[in-house]
Amino acid sequence: MIKIGLLGLGTVGSGVYKIINDNRESIEQKVGTELKIEKILVSDTNKKRSVEINKELLTDQAENILENPEIDLVVELIGGEEPAYSYVKKAIDNNKSVITANKLIIAKHGSEILKAANQNNVQISFEGSVAGGIPIIRPLKESLVASNINNIYGILNGTTNYILTKMTEEKKEFKEVLKEAQELGYAESDPTSDISGLDAAYKIAILSSITFETYVNINSVYSEGIEDITLTDIKVADELGYVIKLLAIAKKQNEGIDIRVHPAFISKKHPLALVNGVYNAIYLNGEIVGDIMSYGKGAGQMPTGSAVVADIIQTAKDIHYNRPNIYSNESTLKHMVIDIDEIKNLFYLRVLVNDKPGVMSEVTEILGNNQVSLASVLQKHRLSPVVPLDLVTHPVREENLNNSLKELKTLNNVKSIESVIRVIEDF
Amino acid sequence: MIKIGLLGLGTVGSGVYKIINDNRESIEQKVGTELKIEKILVSDTNKKRSVEINKELLTDQAENILENPEIDLVVELIGGEEPAYSYVKKAIDNNKSVITANKLIIAKHGSEILKAANQNNVQISFEGSVAGGIPIIRPLKESLVASNINNIYGILNGTTNYILTKMTEEKKEFKEVLKEAQELGYAESDPTSDISGLDAAYKIAILSSITFETYVNINSVYSEGIEDITLTDIKVADELGYVIKLLAIAKKQNEGIDIRVHPAFISKKHPLALVNGVYNAIYLNGEIVGDIMSYGKGAGQMPTGSAVVADIIQTAKDIHYNRPNIYSNESTLKHMVIDIDEIKNLFYLRVLVNDKPGVMSEVTEILGNNQVSLASVLQKHRLSPVVPLDLVTHPVREENLNNSLKELKTLNNVKSIESVIRVIEDF
Repeated sequence: MIKIGLLGLGTVGSGVYKIINDNRESIEQKVGTELKIEKILVSDTNKKRSVEINKELLTDQAENILENPEIDLVVELIGGEEPAYSYVKKAIDNNKSVITANKLIIAKHGSEILKAANQNNVQISFEGSVAGGIPIIRPLKESLVASNINNIYGILNGTTNYILTKMTEEKKEFKEVLKEAQELGYAESDPTSDISGLDAAYKIAILSSITFETYVNINSVYSEGIEDITLTDIKVADELGYVIKLLAIAKKQNEGIDIRVHPAFISKKHPLALVNGVYNAIYLNGEIVGDIMSYGKGAGQMPTGSAVVADIIQTAKDIHYNRPNIYSNESTLKHMVIDIDEIKNLFYLRVLVNDKPGVMSEVTEILGNNQVSLASVLQKHRLSPVVPLDLVTHPVREENLNNSLKELKTLNNVKSIESVIRVIEDF
Repeated sequence: MIKIGLLGLGTVGSGVYKIINDNRESIEQKVGTELKIEKILVSDTNKKRSVEINKELLTDQAENILENPEIDLVVELIGGEEPAYSYVKKAIDNNKSVITANKLIIAKHGSEILKAANQNNVQISFEGSVAGGIPIIRPLKESLVASNINNIYGILNGTTNYILTKMTEEKKEFKEVLKEAQELGYAESDPTSDISGLDAAYKIAILSSITFETYVNINSVYSEGIEDITLTDIKVADELGYVIKLLAIAKKQNEGIDIRVHPAFISKKHPLALVNGVYNAIYLNGEIVGDIMSYGKGAGQMPTGSAVVADIIQTAKDIHYNRPNIYSNESTLKHMVIDIDEIKNLFYLRVLVNDKPGVMSEVTEILGNNQVSLASVLQKHRLSPVVPLDLVTHPVREENLNNSLKELKTLNNVKSIESVIRVIEDF
């Protein structure tokens, strides 16, 4: 029998409890022995719960789990940095294997956690921390091991994908859709972590750490959110054959990693273009296996709960058969994160200019001086003194692009630079 | 050390050999011990090979592998029914675990093979047999165990998907594209197994056996190919907001399984609509996990080779750590395959009729008498005595639909029934 201590009985914790109880027979058959949830840490043992639960299982003292010699496996579903991180460390130090769905502690402290797990010869698993409903971390670690993945393109945040989808389908502006999403519970009352791209940055850092067998420091991941995406951007994208998605990208390049999160124009014909609403997807490219995509719900009680239960099954099985921890090897590889300035991208630019003769040549001269060459120019003449120029560049270093934008802003005939959005075509 | 015997050194066999040799360090780290390819069965030991290989490894005598007490693990990559099936049985009888990418023997003899593997307490794995490049069988068996999958929709045959994609993109007829595909090597010189839907039927039978933990007899899987799809069908689909795909479907329904392969209209907005060219995809729906899709190359040396190597890693690891066979439990469940006549579908019908008053009411009367009600009717009047009626029905039992078609054919004003294609909207 494998005894489990659960830290937290919120949305995901209740989901895990329910999935285990509703599928006990099938799960225990896979594990090869009985599973018992021995103790559950909650903040209030008297609170009314959405799941029916024997009160004797509940405790408000973490030591009853972390110091309990009966417990083999600790499942951390509290979320946030502290006390979650301390609990996980304590559990590992007490020779318990750990499962967590906490992207924050894995992205921030993954390296220390893996090291401690190795030293104590216990397992640490975190399938639920990235794109919960999509089986991806374990296939990456197991099925695709021999595949030498080079590139990862992910839609990793359900809130921003929901907002961009609604803007596209219902022709509404960002703020209006965000408000609706908050009312529907698809966005938090403080949506900063989602909207700013930070949540996706945590996830791509974790995914690239696993895939490229290296450690990626979350602070070196460039991220840009969707706050400035306008309905006009979405309409122009549509006219040009694109949709706008918040993409998380990680690419191996020689000794470095190009890793970043930002909105992007992607072709309507790319499989990621149909990843809509709260769905997530991860699109991989590997030398051996070619292109692969996994698609599913990225978060929520049941998708994340199901990923955590999958980790529980695997870890419990490994404990039962005395199989040592062989996944969480610390990597000896070090990849440098490439500075965003050095990355080459195509860009869509929307520049408002005075509708006068010679303006176009002023603009293109500055671009040319900065090695920005244009793939397409769309100028709509209107009965107005100020007109938009919609430009798409060829690949250009980010630094050169930024220098050209600075110079453009100094022109009298340039009223404003309305939009600067990367165009991803090389996947 | 785990010693491997390889049966076959064709396209996939050479791929497996190459992947293992090029990634030995990373693979052995995952397995936890050394891997050694001990012997390789070939038909001609003197033939020139695409991979560099020590001739002493080659043998043309199957016994040198199947009866070799040194060998722990046999990898069958010969293909076809015989002698592959006999070899697999013999290997299992001699207490060797087996990996195969052979959909034919798994679909036809899966039940006997699993039974023998259980009796001898060895493993049998076949990730490479279905949609090689997509990690799906193992996630189904492991990560998604607790997810109670209800429905599977697959694009499981690369050749037919390539043909339908080309017909759609280049506005060409079936025969022309098939010829091109044969010249390019994307279709066999005898393409019957792909074109007729049989290949996809094998794969959906295997997938549903695993997912629903039951045994599906390949002979009870209804299959219909793409030979009769015309460019007109594709154009009408496009006008109505659909694309045509060869879908493999398996759905749990009460005590039965609705399992079938046929061309289908699917919405352009569904994620499967962007699965183009030789790509495969599997779209699952489960109570817990919601909708999931996996997408990738379904066949080919490296995608299939990579799936086989993933199986080798897992099985070698299990052997090394003395973990018993716990996946290939014979199912005690029996699901009856539901007769296609009983299945309800929406249908697109293209009927050529005389352009005379009263014809429409003759047609709709017959449909109504057979409980076929119409969701949409498109009649294009042309300067021609014969015009097409494009009809889309509401859900109707297949038997009722077929009865109505028989009656329609007896009408003098009905010149022919050009197309009958199912419309899949409920996924």
